[in-house]
Amino acid sequence: MESEQVTGAKEIPDIVVGRLPIYLRALQRMMEEGRRLTSSQELGERLGISAAQIRKDLSQFGEFGKQGTGYSIEFLAEQILHILQVNQVWEMVVVGAGDIGSAIARYQGFANRGFRVIKLFDSDPQKIGQEVGPFTIHNASELEDTIRQAGIKVAMIATPSASAQGVADRLVSAGVKAILNYAPISLNVPEDVQVQYIDPVIHLQRMTYYL
Amino acid sequence: MESEQVTGAKEIPDIVVGRLPIYLRALQRMMEEGRRLTSSQELGERLGISAAQIRKDLSQFGEFGKQGTGYSIEFLAEQILHILQVNQVWEMVVVGAGDIGSAIARYQGFANRGFRVIKLFDSDPQKIGQEVGPFTIHNASELEDTIRQAGIKVAMIATPSASAQGVADRLVSAGVKAILNYAPISLNVPEDVQVQYIDPVIHLQRMTYYL
Repeated sequence: MESEQVTGAKEIPDIVVGRLPIYLRALQRMMEEGRRLTSSQELGERLGISAAQIRKDLSQFGEFGKQGTGYSIEFLAEQILHILQVNQVWEMVVVGAGDIGSAIARYQGFANRGFRVIKLFDSDPQKIGQEVGPFTIHNASELEDTIRQAGIKVAMIATPSASAQGVADRLVSAGVKAILNYAPISLNVPEDVQVQYIDPVIHLQRMTYYL
Repeated sequence: MESEQVTGAKEIPDIVVGRLPIYLRALQRMMEEGRRLTSSQELGERLGISAAQIRKDLSQFGEFGKQGTGYSIEFLAEQILHILQVNQVWEMVVVGAGDIGSAIARYQGFANRGFRVIKLFDSDPQKIGQEVGPFTIHNASELEDTIRQAGIKVAMIATPSASAQGVADRLVSAGVKAILNYAPISLNVPEDVQVQYIDPVIHLQRMTYYL
């Protein structure tokens, strides 16, 4: 699955990789607006990142823009899609069908951005079999089979904190390599598994420091 | 509202401030487990951050631990609560009562971590007046009055992308200084207003790079 641009990928600082999805989102919005060309200055103003930083980040992956004429939005977006490997659709499972899990399973924002939720799981007998939008809540006991059969690599955890590590262990044992964790707890996973966290309180507390 | 520890706060790199809520969450979990003492090594192992980094981060704010005996969990947690100004409860409003907005309004994880949602707003006449858990959905036209009367400084946006900037402008004009934005779009706000973003796709794309 690796390509020319991704050669030497491990050398690129994670913080730069972390900004690429933000650039991609801005570029896709410009495309929706019918735009064709942009510049590091304009991207910088939209995103609150310096133009120099953007040029430096993008130059790590290749020569995308031309001095004076700026970047072709569509070309640059395609390159970043390719670098991030989201020029394909990753099927995902969601574990935990509470408020948050049900909301993210139905989230409209995954479409056209490289992801699709295929199944929603819970271990609560009261919830199993119920409908959540287009999803039926499946018994969490079927988790490993589903992941193995569908070759799932990406999962979201939206269980209570007390269950999250156990769910993560099961996901990893079945072959999941990337976990987005909504439970407010740090997970221990093997080195070859990626974890990202979404905990609104972490973001809120980071802001109140400055108030 | 500034305290001794916070003197010179603007000198502390934002990336360090961003780790403090993660340390706090781990410390609070240890307290729930009935623990009294910890070390930078143990915190590091739980969080996947080096012990040296943790010692360096915490030393920026004062002398919290003793060589050889480690950190008092309760004392360190109290200090971080104080530094982040979450030794008080910040009242918040949520704008947008769709799946995500309704889920975050009801989120149990704010309790004891410095935040409380007091009102949920939407502009859709079909939704106004409906109940979402303990909340009644209020007309978004009342937004500014509520914020001014209650002295609200913190808000969450969970509207469609197209409405988010307009809502942000209204929040800021009414006195909000910290916005947690769930709409997948970058917001323009004055320099004295903090914005943080929650967009699951940004986190997912950051992981697929490594798969």
